[in-house]
Amino acid sequence: MSTPNLLDESLPLPAAVIYQSRLDNNLHWMQRFAEHNQVQLCPHGKTTMTPDFFRRQIDAGAWGLTLATVPQVKAAADAGVPRILMANQLVGRANMDIVSDLLAQGLQYYCLVDNPDNIRALNRFFGERGQTLPVLLEVGVPGGRCGCRTRHQIDTVLAALKDAPALQLSGVETYEGVIHGSDPEAAIRAHLQSVRALTLELHQSGQFAVETPILTGAGSAWYDVVMEEFGPVRDQGLLPVLRPGCYLIHDKGIYWEAQSDIMTRLPRDCQPGGNLQSSLEVWAYVQSIPEPGMAILTIGKREVAFDAGLPQPVLHYRPTDSTESGSAQPQPAPNDWEVDHIMDHHSRLRTRPDADLQVGDIIALSTSHPCLTFDKWRQLLVINDHYQLLRRVDTHF
Amino acid sequence: MSTPNLLDESLPLPAAVIYQSRLDNNLHWMQRFAEHNQVQLCPHGKTTMTPDFFRRQIDAGAWGLTLATVPQVKAAADAGVPRILMANQLVGRANMDIVSDLLAQGLQYYCLVDNPDNIRALNRFFGERGQTLPVLLEVGVPGGRCGCRTRHQIDTVLAALKDAPALQLSGVETYEGVIHGSDPEAAIRAHLQSVRALTLELHQSGQFAVETPILTGAGSAWYDVVMEEFGPVRDQGLLPVLRPGCYLIHDKGIYWEAQSDIMTRLPRDCQPGGNLQSSLEVWAYVQSIPEPGMAILTIGKREVAFDAGLPQPVLHYRPTDSTESGSAQPQPAPNDWEVDHIMDHHSRLRTRPDADLQVGDIIALSTSHPCLTFDKWRQLLVINDHYQLLRRVDTHF
Repeated sequence: MSTPNLLDESLPLPAAVIYQSRLDNNLHWMQRFAEHNQVQLCPHGKTTMTPDFFRRQIDAGAWGLTLATVPQVKAAADAGVPRILMANQLVGRANMDIVSDLLAQGLQYYCLVDNPDNIRALNRFFGERGQTLPVLLEVGVPGGRCGCRTRHQIDTVLAALKDAPALQLSGVETYEGVIHGSDPEAAIRAHLQSVRALTLELHQSGQFAVETPILTGAGSAWYDVVMEEFGPVRDQGLLPVLRPGCYLIHDKGIYWEAQSDIMTRLPRDCQPGGNLQSSLEVWAYVQSIPEPGMAILTIGKREVAFDAGLPQPVLHYRPTDSTESGSAQPQPAPNDWEVDHIMDHHSRLRTRPDADLQVGDIIALSTSHPCLTFDKWRQLLVINDHYQLLRRVDTHF
Repeated sequence: MSTPNLLDESLPLPAAVIYQSRLDNNLHWMQRFAEHNQVQLCPHGKTTMTPDFFRRQIDAGAWGLTLATVPQVKAAADAGVPRILMANQLVGRANMDIVSDLLAQGLQYYCLVDNPDNIRALNRFFGERGQTLPVLLEVGVPGGRCGCRTRHQIDTVLAALKDAPALQLSGVETYEGVIHGSDPEAAIRAHLQSVRALTLELHQSGQFAVETPILTGAGSAWYDVVMEEFGPVRDQGLLPVLRPGCYLIHDKGIYWEAQSDIMTRLPRDCQPGGNLQSSLEVWAYVQSIPEPGMAILTIGKREVAFDAGLPQPVLHYRPTDSTESGSAQPQPAPNDWEVDHIMDHHSRLRTRPDADLQVGDIIALSTSHPCLTFDKWRQLLVINDHYQLLRRVDTHF
């Protein structure tokens, strides 16, 4: 049997497809960015939840992997990731049980703390087991998500940690992505500078239980600013760690826009050369053309993200009836084709009434917000630039 | 080991939870509705994609199961469902391959046709294999989804079917759920009446290849109207089939509202007694209370539907530190608690500033749009009314 190819219709559609060359490009681009700018990379794995990709990120030089939940941490640890930053509070006895087992197996793990009740619960649980749990102080943003808002809250957390010998304060974490407003960059820089000053003060006053505490920010939309504001602490005995996630897959929607802004902001001597590429497409069939200029595609909310813009057609391909593969190549979809409505299992593609489109044609679509496309698939197809299947990769949502 | 119970924290949260008693209520309510009104029930399985529930629907008396995609059909057939209506066109060689195998294994299967190109492709594929494929003519709605809009399109499809001996025209399908406007009930009734008249005409002119052709409409929001308009064809040699899906899980959002409308419309002598109940909750922890009146919960867009209203808190429970289960019971969440923002893995719960809430507390949330909550979970917990785990059920998305 020949290698399956998306063009010979031997693979059932719809399918979520990753281009290996673009994945490699993104993997190495971000690692070069981190190394060039002397910060550590701890990519957020929640985007893909694909152990095959986790291993590539670690092999490429990532310091560790960031994850959001305990089941995610377990999936990554089971895939061999040795160091995991859970960018969340650890809550609930069954969740603590799972983390306790992973610590016993040698996982280097960090979670966040922002609350004395939680610190007491963690200390009781891990203390009873004779284990030490490394934690990072989370500093938040008013109106945002988790994390201490005030100096009083921080002092209360530090006081609770003094009574929690099973917990080891190992650094400070923040997530700048919840800051919006008319001048987000200025507000984000001010927030990061304040978190940096706090961390240096805590370091100087001996609040950390480790020699080189971590100072970490996220995220896919502002990692350049985090690098600029947090990077310099490397000269003051701290370890600056970035946690972007979506770069590996990228998109042609919200993260494409964010990356354009980053490349505009980023001084030339901080750029590693090249740029990110959208590595994910969803391939689907035209299943009906019930009206001129209206085609119904075999993908919907069950197959692709729809919360940050609808998927957009990028390729059009008409399978041949011959069994020989590659007799024709996909063509770029015309610019005026647009998905304007999405249902659970259908999307409505608008074209000109005289568009050359048939039931049975294949449309490849780019996406916006890779996180909420990935979690709809248990398996993705990794292909080469000739649309040949290289391997199938499993997701672990 | 005692039976795991959500109240003793032996089950990791967040978790998607189904109450067995409410599931049973819904299962039998809809089956009684169909039997009482002499229509066949072919529930849409895409909502749950849970073979355990498919088998219960068939065992309770369902005529068959409706599904949306070929992988869904295969999952249901593998679970032992003997008759499946795929309420979609069958497109693509690899998808036809899968259906061909299922036909060979004895599955009774129907798909929809609305296009001559598709009919020719299906005829060529199944004809070459010496198989017969039962199909239903799909009649659509202008501006809607798939399906023929005009009599000319219908005649073109019928002509193509005459040249397609491998295809067996077995009835007519429509989906009224895409009809909206200022008086949707009147527009839906008019559409259903027109589809009914067409079907009777086709039956009288001998267009169907089967003795008792099917006339089928959906759906969870208008099944009463479909029953009223399509039911009477049973006296004219046709089989009326309803395809609601969400009733089994129901919700406290869009389908709760739809069902309220149905119960208002439905004549008393058509009601089977009782009513549907929301059988799904998502249970999560409070992981942070960073500001007075703001709690961050451990669920987000990765765990619960957000396209038709945000999840709403229904229960509040504070775990005891004792290992004895059941020392306290969940309390109804105050009416003024509200989830007002959802992120990938977090939700923001607004309460009064003095609410009695702690990090580590458990919140059970009801949902709107069960389809897009179910597909976020590979496994759900089925519990009894005492929150004890009865079994885990796997989903097959």
